[in-house]
Amino acid sequence: MTTEIPADDCFAMPPGVKWLPVDDAINRIISNFVPRDKTEKISLHDAAGRILAEPITALRNNPAMSNSAVDGFGFSFDSLQEKKVLELEGGYVAPGALLGKSVPFGKAIKILTGAPLPSGVDTVQLQEYAQIKSNFPQSNTRLEKGANTRLAGEDIQVGDLLFVKGHKIKTNDLATLIAAGIEKIKVFTKLRVGVLSTGNELVPTGMSPEPTKVFDANRPMILSLIDKLGFIPIDLGLARDIKEEVRSKLNLGSSSSDIILTSGGASSGMEDYVSHLLSKEGELNFWRIAIKPGRPLALAKWHDTYIFGLPGNPIAAFVCTLIFGLPAMRILSGENWIPPVGFMVPSAFRKIKKPGRREYLRAKTNNAGMVEVFASEGSGLTTSLSWSEGLVELGEDTQNINKGDLVKYYPYCSFWG
Amino acid sequence: MTTEIPADDCFAMPPGVKWLPVDDAINRIISNFVPRDKTEKISLHDAAGRILAEPITALRNNPAMSNSAVDGFGFSFDSLQEKKVLELEGGYVAPGALLGKSVPFGKAIKILTGAPLPSGVDTVQLQEYAQIKSNFPQSNTRLEKGANTRLAGEDIQVGDLLFVKGHKIKTNDLATLIAAGIEKIKVFTKLRVGVLSTGNELVPTGMSPEPTKVFDANRPMILSLIDKLGFIPIDLGLARDIKEEVRSKLNLGSSSSDIILTSGGASSGMEDYVSHLLSKEGELNFWRIAIKPGRPLALAKWHDTYIFGLPGNPIAAFVCTLIFGLPAMRILSGENWIPPVGFMVPSAFRKIKKPGRREYLRAKTNNAGMVEVFASEGSGLTTSLSWSEGLVELGEDTQNINKGDLVKYYPYCSFWG
Repeated sequence: MTTEIPADDCFAMPPGVKWLPVDDAINRIISNFVPRDKTEKISLHDAAGRILAEPITALRNNPAMSNSAVDGFGFSFDSLQEKKVLELEGGYVAPGALLGKSVPFGKAIKILTGAPLPSGVDTVQLQEYAQIKSNFPQSNTRLEKGANTRLAGEDIQVGDLLFVKGHKIKTNDLATLIAAGIEKIKVFTKLRVGVLSTGNELVPTGMSPEPTKVFDANRPMILSLIDKLGFIPIDLGLARDIKEEVRSKLNLGSSSSDIILTSGGASSGMEDYVSHLLSKEGELNFWRIAIKPGRPLALAKWHDTYIFGLPGNPIAAFVCTLIFGLPAMRILSGENWIPPVGFMVPSAFRKIKKPGRREYLRAKTNNAGMVEVFASEGSGLTTSLSWSEGLVELGEDTQNINKGDLVKYYPYCSFWG
Repeated sequence: MTTEIPADDCFAMPPGVKWLPVDDAINRIISNFVPRDKTEKISLHDAAGRILAEPITALRNNPAMSNSAVDGFGFSFDSLQEKKVLELEGGYVAPGALLGKSVPFGKAIKILTGAPLPSGVDTVQLQEYAQIKSNFPQSNTRLEKGANTRLAGEDIQVGDLLFVKGHKIKTNDLATLIAAGIEKIKVFTKLRVGVLSTGNELVPTGMSPEPTKVFDANRPMILSLIDKLGFIPIDLGLARDIKEEVRSKLNLGSSSSDIILTSGGASSGMEDYVSHLLSKEGELNFWRIAIKPGRPLALAKWHDTYIFGLPGNPIAAFVCTLIFGLPAMRILSGENWIPPVGFMVPSAFRKIKKPGRREYLRAKTNNAGMVEVFASEGSGLTTSLSWSEGLVELGEDTQNINKGDLVKYYPYCSFWG
C-alpha cells in the first residue's frame, strides 16, 4: 500500500522500467527511415539548402587558364635566372582577354590579377616589390618558379567529383559549383512537415482567453523550427480532443505532408484521443527514452505518413524535435545524416546528476568562454528556452559536474547549420 | 633599383605601409553606422529572424494559473502531514477547465499535467509513485510542499521586460512571446542589400564561355549569404568596366537597396572604373586592413547609400562580408551588434604565421574534436571554401601553432545564428 517516493522530479525514472538509451533511439530512427524519391531540377541560384539527388562532377577546370594571382610583372623564371636583369615589354595583360603575343625570353610584362599568363610567362613578381624603370629588378633566390600564379585546373579539374548524392548545398559551396560550370542541379524536393497541436486547453494567439486556457506555443515554435531546418512547414492547426476533429487533421496531414509532428497541450501529446485513434486505425509505438527533458516519444503512422508525437511541454518538444525528429526528417528529405557538431567547453556551473539517462540543459556561453546553464531546470519555463543559445549534453554515465570541467555544448545553430 | 623580394605571398604586407588592425576596422564600422528608421507591425508567426523596434513587456502571466507539472494526485501538503493517509476524491482535473469545487482537507484528487490546481490543492504526487486503491500512500518526508506544481507567474509576470529593442527574435524566443500574450510586434523592416559584380572577364552561369572568361561566382554566393544572414538580397547584376554601365548599376542599387556590396572580378573589386566613378562623383575610402585573406576594403557612398567594395576573390569576399560587412549590416538593420561566438578548439595542424596581421583560415572540426585547416592556403581555391565549415582566427600576435594548441574556431553558423 505504501511506496517509497523519490525526490521531486517530474522527469524521474521510476524503478524497474526499461528505458531506451538516446543513441539507441537515434540509431533505430536512422535505420528505419529512407529517403523519399521525389526530385526536381533547379537553378544553381536557388541551390543553397537543397539536397543533391545525384553526385556532381565538374564540367570545367578552375581556373580555366593559368593566370596571375596578383598585380605584378610576369616573365619566364629561367630568363630571370640567366639574365638577372629583365627589360620591360610594352602593354599589359588584363583579366578576360589574351595578350595576343608571346613575351620574349628576357622580358617582363605588366599583368593584372586574374589575367591569363601569356606564352613565355610562368612566374609573376608582386608589383609592390618591383622597382621598375626601364628594366626589372635583379633575380632573387627567394622567388620560386611559378610564384604568384594559379595553374589551370589547380582548384578543379573536369570530371572531379565535387559533391556526393545526399549532400546539402551550403552557401559556401556555391563558388565551387559555379566555377565548375554547373548550372542546374537535380535535388530532392523539399520535405513537407505538418505540425499539429492537440488539446482542449489550447487557444491560438490573438484570443483573449480565460485564465484556464493556454496559448498554443508549440505549433508556431515548431513551424518556425521546421523552416529554420530547411523544410516546408505545413500548419495543420489545432485539434480539440474530439475524435472526428483529430481524424480530419491527421487526414489533412497525411495528404499534405511527408511527416507530421504533433504535440499535446500541457500533457505528453499522444495520450487520449490522438493515441486512441492511432492505435485503433493506424500504428502506434511509445518509446520510453532515457532522456531529460522528454516524455515517452510516440512514433506512429497514419495512412503511410510518419507521425512523431512530441511532448506537450515546449522545452521538451523543442529538444525532442532536434534530437529525434531531425535525423528522421533529414533522412526522409534525402540528406546524408551527419550528427550536429558539438564543442567541449569549460563549465561555469556545478551539477549533481543521476546516472542512467542523458540530459540536455538549456545553456549559453559567456564572455569568459565558459558555458552557463539556466538557473532553474523547471520544465515549464519558456524563458529558459529564450535565454539559451544551445544545449549542454550530459552523457548517461555523467554524475558530478564541477566548474571548469569540459562539457559537450551544441549551439542551436549546429542543428540547422 | 633593386629591392629585396620577400617570400611568395600574394597577401604579404609590404614594409613601411600602415595597416589597420581588424578590431579597429570593426570598431570604426560599429561607430559609423546607425539603425535605419523603417519599422512595421507584424504577426508573431512571422517574427523569427526579425529585429525588435521596441522593447517587449509581458501582457499575461505564464502560467496564467498554478497547475500540475505531472499526471498524479493533488492534495494539501498540510493534510498529508497531519492525516498520513488520504482518501481519494471522485473525478479528476484536466487542463483547460476548473474543477468547480474545492478538494477537502484530507482528500486527494486525480490531476493531469497542466490542469489548474483546484482550491485545497498545493502539492502533487507523481502518478507512478502512488499505489492507489481506496486511499493515498503514507506521507514521505522527501516530498516537499508545492512538489510537482507550477505556480502562476513563475515563468513570466505581466509587465516583465522580455526583450529589448534591437533584439533579433529567434525560433526559441517564440514560446516565451506567445505565453506572454504577445500577438503583434513592431520590428524594423528587413534590410535590403544590393549585390553587384563588376569585371569584363566575368560571365553569368549558363553561358559557354571562352577559356579567358570567368564565371561570376561572387554574386550568387553573396546573394545567398545575404539571404542566410536574414536580409533581403537584391541582385544588381553584372557590370562591365564601362563608366555608364557602372553608374547605372549604382543608381539602381541606391534606389533599391539600403547598402550595396560590390566585388570585382579577379582583382580587388574597387579598382579602375568603379573606384574612378565613386571618387569623382561619390565618396571613397580605402582601408588597408591587417587581415588575410582580404585586400584593401573599400568603403564608399553613392547618393547616401553605403557601398562595401569587397575583394574579387571569392574566399576573401566571403570572409570580408562576414568580418566587416556583417557588423555594418546588422547595425543598419536595427540589430544590437553582438560578435559571433567562437570556440577554443585543439588544433590538428601546425603553422608558422607572421606576426602583425590577423588570419582567418578555412577550417572544420574532425571526429576527434580537433580543428583542421585546408591543406593549401591558396586564395583561388574555391574548393577550400566548400570543404570548410568555419574559420580559425589567428590573432595579430600569434606566430607558431603546434598540434594540440587551442585556437579560436568560428563555425560559419555562428555568423548567421
